[in-house]
Amino acid sequence: MRVHHLVPPWLKHYQPRWLIGDSIAALLASMMLIPQALAYAALAGLPPYLGLYAGLLPLVGYALFGSSSVLSVGPVAVLALMTASALTPIATPGSPEYINGAILLALLSGILLLIMGLLGLGSLANLLSLPVVDGFVSGAALLIIAGQIAPLLGVESGGDTVLEILLSTIRHLPNTDREAALLGIIALSSLIAARLGLPFLLRELGVNPARSKLLSRLAPMLIVVISIALTALFHWEKELPVVGIIPAGLPDLIIPPFSPGLIYQLLLPALIIALLGFVESLSIAHSIAQRRGEKLNTNAELRGLGASNIVSAFSGGFAVTGSFARTAVNDESGAKSPLSGVIAAGFIALLLLYATKVFTELPICVLAATIIVTAANLINFRGMLHHWHYDRTDGLAMAGTFLGVVFFGVETGIGLGVGLSFATLIWRASRPHIAVVGRVPGTEQFRNVLRHAVKTQPDILFLRIDENLFFSNINAIEERLSVEIKRHRNTRHMVLILSSVNRIDSTAIERLRQVNKDFQSRHIQLHLAEVKGRVLDRLGRSQLLQELSGRVFLSPYIAELALRHHKFDEDSHKPGP
Amino acid sequence: MRVHHLVPPWLKHYQPRWLIGDSIAALLASMMLIPQALAYAALAGLPPYLGLYAGLLPLVGYALFGSSSVLSVGPVAVLALMTASALTPIATPGSPEYINGAILLALLSGILLLIMGLLGLGSLANLLSLPVVDGFVSGAALLIIAGQIAPLLGVESGGDTVLEILLSTIRHLPNTDREAALLGIIALSSLIAARLGLPFLLRELGVNPARSKLLSRLAPMLIVVISIALTALFHWEKELPVVGIIPAGLPDLIIPPFSPGLIYQLLLPALIIALLGFVESLSIAHSIAQRRGEKLNTNAELRGLGASNIVSAFSGGFAVTGSFARTAVNDESGAKSPLSGVIAAGFIALLLLYATKVFTELPICVLAATIIVTAANLINFRGMLHHWHYDRTDGLAMAGTFLGVVFFGVETGIGLGVGLSFATLIWRASRPHIAVVGRVPGTEQFRNVLRHAVKTQPDILFLRIDENLFFSNINAIEERLSVEIKRHRNTRHMVLILSSVNRIDSTAIERLRQVNKDFQSRHIQLHLAEVKGRVLDRLGRSQLLQELSGRVFLSPYIAELALRHHKFDEDSHKPGP
Repeated sequence: MRVHHLVPPWLKHYQPRWLIGDSIAALLASMMLIPQALAYAALAGLPPYLGLYAGLLPLVGYALFGSSSVLSVGPVAVLALMTASALTPIATPGSPEYINGAILLALLSGILLLIMGLLGLGSLANLLSLPVVDGFVSGAALLIIAGQIAPLLGVESGGDTVLEILLSTIRHLPNTDREAALLGIIALSSLIAARLGLPFLLRELGVNPARSKLLSRLAPMLIVVISIALTALFHWEKELPVVGIIPAGLPDLIIPPFSPGLIYQLLLPALIIALLGFVESLSIAHSIAQRRGEKLNTNAELRGLGASNIVSAFSGGFAVTGSFARTAVNDESGAKSPLSGVIAAGFIALLLLYATKVFTELPICVLAATIIVTAANLINFRGMLHHWHYDRTDGLAMAGTFLGVVFFGVETGIGLGVGLSFATLIWRASRPHIAVVGRVPGTEQFRNVLRHAVKTQPDILFLRIDENLFFSNINAIEERLSVEIKRHRNTRHMVLILSSVNRIDSTAIERLRQVNKDFQSRHIQLHLAEVKGRVLDRLGRSQLLQELSGRVFLSPYIAELALRHHKFDEDSHKPGP
Repeated sequence: MRVHHLVPPWLKHYQPRWLIGDSIAALLASMMLIPQALAYAALAGLPPYLGLYAGLLPLVGYALFGSSSVLSVGPVAVLALMTASALTPIATPGSPEYINGAILLALLSGILLLIMGLLGLGSLANLLSLPVVDGFVSGAALLIIAGQIAPLLGVESGGDTVLEILLSTIRHLPNTDREAALLGIIALSSLIAARLGLPFLLRELGVNPARSKLLSRLAPMLIVVISIALTALFHWEKELPVVGIIPAGLPDLIIPPFSPGLIYQLLLPALIIALLGFVESLSIAHSIAQRRGEKLNTNAELRGLGASNIVSAFSGGFAVTGSFARTAVNDESGAKSPLSGVIAAGFIALLLLYATKVFTELPICVLAATIIVTAANLINFRGMLHHWHYDRTDGLAMAGTFLGVVFFGVETGIGLGVGLSFATLIWRASRPHIAVVGRVPGTEQFRNVLRHAVKTQPDILFLRIDENLFFSNINAIEERLSVEIKRHRNTRHMVLILSSVNRIDSTAIERLRQVNKDFQSRHIQLHLAEVKGRVLDRLGRSQLLQELSGRVFLSPYIAELALRHHKFDEDSHKPGP
């Protein structure tokens, strides 16, 4: 990489007056980040303070290599869940092996993202369709909520699926910690009230809507501070689980432990984390860039996220990506450049250096409450319904992913979704649409006879095949041709309009040769029309063109002119001389 | 099933004068069947006489339910190989468990075929493209030949892949049985001579080509008879392995042994055997039906093959399908109806009742020689080269299957081939062809500017997208639109011609909405043209049409008229009023 690449373009053109906006945004975003970082680390099965590590250097890494001006990179709920899901089969949550696993997972997905960015392989993200991502996020959110009920009530639980987790939680209910449950439920209610009621209240008080929304987003930090104060005041830390000791000072730079066996085990989860993190982050960055009229560079995004994950790993953190909520806060509170991310990292560094003690007495049940509220926000039933309404196959891929995540866990869910989206793609292509078409009077256009008032010829059958011809649909196409020949008994010429056909594979060619011979024996000429140049080139390599009983026409209109001219009187439709 | 279905249509219309043709064809086909049946049973790892059982009732089963008049059903080399490949991991070849396994495999594939036939699921065969089938058959033939070198030389061998088998054969070479090797190599040379030289010799002698080809096909039977006579004369049966005792009499009808565990183990091999057998048989039946001007019924074919396999199982045989060589003999020697199959079964029954002793002294090495010659005939390098030349992705699927079969065995090979053919399909669709088009002067047709002399407009960019729009290609399409906008700086209108687009999924819709907004901010109007009815219906369910900055035109020609009319002087291409 050349040296000038290391000085990001935004820094070269930085204007001092941006500093105020960037600083205010950084303060607000880091106020939001602190409780989330602690909570998501706990969700990932890690000591909460590691969330602060994952929220520190990645902000700087992205600022150096990324292309969005306000994307806020750091720990997010879905990747925390995936980290836990990948590691629980391997080690005990919180153990040194587990922590090493989380670091390695971040490092691997960072390297994968970086490789994708350097090789321009951003298209790998194209494996994930929108319905699959939406289904996945909603399913993961349900899984997260199910998993946080236990810590909210101060009990243990386990399991990989919603059902397992809920059953395990119910089994442990008799051990509920009264203090934790009480505080947790109060915190949860306050958070819900803050999210639903606060913007309304503030608007009534005359605060403008954007600002009141922003303030309501800071409610978690407020509730965290209040609960810390209450815990310290009444010495609840003896009664209920708290965050505990946070080592003061910045994270040591470490070289994550390598082991080929572990790398092999974590490679697939790391790839899924990399792809999902990338797709999610890109969609956030996209919507912000569009609103701001900025241009996004997909490969720079890959490099930015790759660098973030790698520095997260080297500073002992876990997998990170762009956060929807914190990016929104950053944007709405006036961030002008990626410097706001660097400043936010500075605030986290100050916290780690001087104020870690404050958070030691933060009750875990309050973190659980904040996670539940954020996760509930990720569930997008309306979006899911939209996919279902738009297209049943999209709906199927989405439902498969959602139910797969809920009932079988995150990795099975995403695998099921990707598998379903490709399977339905092929299934659709193997049931091609074929339209009998006729000419729109007064034009050269041919349209479906069922949808338009068109003129047809008694002995010329025009069929438009709306799909590429290949091994898994050529059988259906052949059968449809037979059916149409039976329906149109006077057909002497069949014109196949190939305007929608971009490829004909060798299986289809062989079958078309048979169809041509078969028609020939029944005195029906087979013609082709509107064959694309590339397809015609390919056909030239087979014997079909030499054997074809009819001709290849530039368009169905020219075919109609030529075929009618030879045999028909224009108006009477009777055989001419 | 209704009773009248059990009387096949051909029997109702049978004409007595057909009897002579049917009988002669039956005699010749059964002369060819006998050595093949014994050989393929040995190839399947079964006692050779079981091949005769598999060649008996299946002929009748097919005659009752099938739709081809001359298809000859029975043991074939490829299915024998697949039977051996499925069973060797489970039991010792020739053991009672192994024989039970072969019976169960035939039963399962028969039931699967019957179910497919009754549910009209013949389209399942569409999973197998021609290149995959061709690659498979050639690879399987190589595997068969490699496996028959050992019995040809009278030694043992083992292994699942060509390399394993050859290495094992070489390791056993020191144990070569001199008598077997000598007889085997003489038989092999004679068979090769008969296949290559006999038709030529006979033609020179004035025999017509069709008849001389037919006679050369009967050479194996002749060589079998000669080798039996020589063995009996010189008492070679003490020196080399022979077929051994064939139980006299017709096979007992048995109920194949069931075991859920075994069924589970054999279900996938049975499905592959069913599908491959069906595809192979259908292509044979197709080519014959075409030449005879007959109509084939795909579902009747499935029922016919299903019934054949089930009766094969109940009479102790193994998996069967249509044989290319015996069907050709049946056809060429004048068969008129499926009765020829029934008569051929009668000849086999007579053999089993009265002449089994004749074949006890048939040397195994002679059977190996006949298998090698038939298998060599299945290798179709020319067909494989043809696929490769026609299309590299077809060639890749074929090469993958061929090499997979040769290096990893039959099931891995077919799995690899099917996987590759779908993967390349998706890979192709995710790299869509997009053409900048212009109007062919004097017509309403729009064609690729790179291929045709067309007229373009300075401020209207016409792009034809030659692929469905979906999640794995929308990114590439979006990038191409940006590139074209940069290349055509004066563009004020971009018209996307969707004549090739049959589906737009919800991921693509969302991205198109973004593109539309993005263009709008750059003062470029986005229009659609030639949108198919079904696609337009679907678009109506999304917000794209409401948000679209431009219009939806029936055709690019109408778009050009409308857009030029508003802003341009027809000839000068300068902005008008």
